[in-house]
Amino acid sequence: MSQTSLVQAQRLQDFVQALFVHAGMDEAAAQSVARALVWADLRGIDTHGVSRVAFYMNFISKGVIKVQPQWRVLHDTPAVQVFDADACAGAVAMDRAVEQAAIKARGVGLGLVMVRGTTHTGALGCFTQALARQGMVGVALAASIPLMAYHGAKAAGVSTAPLSIAVPGPDDEPMILDMASGAMSMGQLRAAKQSGSPLPAGLALSEQGDPTTDPQQASIVLPMAGPKGSGLALMFELLCSLVVGNSIIADFFSDKPAARKHRQNAWVLAVDIARFGDLAHYRLEVARTVAVLAGLPMSRPGEPIRMPGDRGLHCHAQRLREGIPLTHALRKELAGCARPETLALPW
Amino acid sequence: MSQTSLVQAQRLQDFVQALFVHAGMDEAAAQSVARALVWADLRGIDTHGVSRVAFYMNFISKGVIKVQPQWRVLHDTPAVQVFDADACAGAVAMDRAVEQAAIKARGVGLGLVMVRGTTHTGALGCFTQALARQGMVGVALAASIPLMAYHGAKAAGVSTAPLSIAVPGPDDEPMILDMASGAMSMGQLRAAKQSGSPLPAGLALSEQGDPTTDPQQASIVLPMAGPKGSGLALMFELLCSLVVGNSIIADFFSDKPAARKHRQNAWVLAVDIARFGDLAHYRLEVARTVAVLAGLPMSRPGEPIRMPGDRGLHCHAQRLREGIPLTHALRKELAGCARPETLALPW
Repeated sequence: MSQTSLVQAQRLQDFVQALFVHAGMDEAAAQSVARALVWADLRGIDTHGVSRVAFYMNFISKGVIKVQPQWRVLHDTPAVQVFDADACAGAVAMDRAVEQAAIKARGVGLGLVMVRGTTHTGALGCFTQALARQGMVGVALAASIPLMAYHGAKAAGVSTAPLSIAVPGPDDEPMILDMASGAMSMGQLRAAKQSGSPLPAGLALSEQGDPTTDPQQASIVLPMAGPKGSGLALMFELLCSLVVGNSIIADFFSDKPAARKHRQNAWVLAVDIARFGDLAHYRLEVARTVAVLAGLPMSRPGEPIRMPGDRGLHCHAQRLREGIPLTHALRKELAGCARPETLALPW
Repeated sequence: MSQTSLVQAQRLQDFVQALFVHAGMDEAAAQSVARALVWADLRGIDTHGVSRVAFYMNFISKGVIKVQPQWRVLHDTPAVQVFDADACAGAVAMDRAVEQAAIKARGVGLGLVMVRGTTHTGALGCFTQALARQGMVGVALAASIPLMAYHGAKAAGVSTAPLSIAVPGPDDEPMILDMASGAMSMGQLRAAKQSGSPLPAGLALSEQGDPTTDPQQASIVLPMAGPKGSGLALMFELLCSLVVGNSIIADFFSDKPAARKHRQNAWVLAVDIARFGDLAHYRLEVARTVAVLAGLPMSRPGEPIRMPGDRGLHCHAQRLREGIPLTHALRKELAGCARPETLALPW
């Protein structure tokens, strides 16, 4: 096992930001990306943290992610904006979507931004949290290339369809649901491959599409709750991709030259709570709801009942205090990214 | 087993409509309710069909459902309407929400109606389908009293949180995802109790909150995919109920006099596709996406890969042709409802 170092979050974020500036991004764009990645690390979503830096750099070098994208607003109404993200880094597009959705919501109570043609949007909770911090309901969903089996099929047909919903909570701390519609996450699959422990039945298929509990054989994730998980994933494609005329699934299986090129489309929706009631009262009602659920009899004595995002929040507090654990392999990977001569490693 | 009769859908709908008029509803309201119930029967969702008539009549007699509600628009913006449904029958409120959401969406591309204080909203696909038929994306969700275990708890804490998403499909036939966030539906549980066949593990708890596979012991449904299912259900409460100041879960566990009174809150969202692209092209892209997914290698040879709503659509065609099967018990129940002397039974 590789040795792990703890790196202070802000130092790590500054370092990653400098890497992306070096790769050609503007300061603001690089900050969006670095902040979103370190946010995921802080929340314990390591698969969407700085472990993605090298993956993004690879995309940049291939032109899959554009460091100097040309925004284009395609449609704009008092409630909706559709913009073409021109293959920018996902966090850049999502930060912009959050900003625009909030503006619309402050205007007419509701805002939807449809993001066309962005790249890996990362951990969506980062963006819904930003809306919740402004007193809004934030909803984000994304469509991507097939990674998950469609129910009844032996092959990947749909994306794992991430969905996040966040609302303002008590103590100024948003409550964030951040989920995908797979029976397990790719991160959990990777962890099982490392540990070698067999998977519960019904979570994954082999590359040949046969059910397997052998983590080394497992390749395609199954949808959560069968047709519900893959149905949601299909619907996210029909909402996020098809409304803006940027099919991913249909193209993926076509012989178009860019068929399998990495790309994503996303929705960011905001509802301005204060427009329809009292925000302070809303927070109190969230607290009251949480209190009754957390006070239900526990299934397993000693295992407290958790609210969405509880683990992430706890992890965030701990890692902010103690630092973000980076394995030797990950440090090596980050140290291997092209960087300005004057930029020191943050560990 | 009770003998089943096939009853022609329109005759059944007219009969049920007349029952609700007799119970005090206006023609239009009674039609909304009768249409929604028969829609569910046609689609094969028997638990949300005319088997609910007696249940609704009971609610009417207790004043839980008001037959002459006083609408009240609480908030109105170019994109959002919040209205108090004054405990009307759910389908009446939902039909109105569909109408208003569509008006908003035609205006600014997007419409959200937040329905406060309605009653059993029934099969949500009925309402999202109505939006899809108008060329829109339709999304509906509802919050209700606790019926499903919250993940980690031995007791019901959240509702089964229905969600429906519909989009215009090829051949003018909307594609409808209509799901709840439980590991099984109450209807499936009832069927298992009748057949006596053991449940797969992980679907239900006994009244005491212990895991069980005995259908007679099973009482509380578990959430699909554990924390995801109950997290979604909690979020639906925080969205549908708390934004309009009508907590259900928190009140349910309180000592308020009306704490456990049946009520629901709902969201209906519409996006006008033609505003952001070409609707005919959209339909073609849906067809292209469906074609690639349906063409994937099947998990089980001979079991075709289905799209959301496929079974319902097939059932609809068959039952429209052959009639809706009503058991002897259900016919007796319907015949037992108070009705005008001149109203003949439809079988």
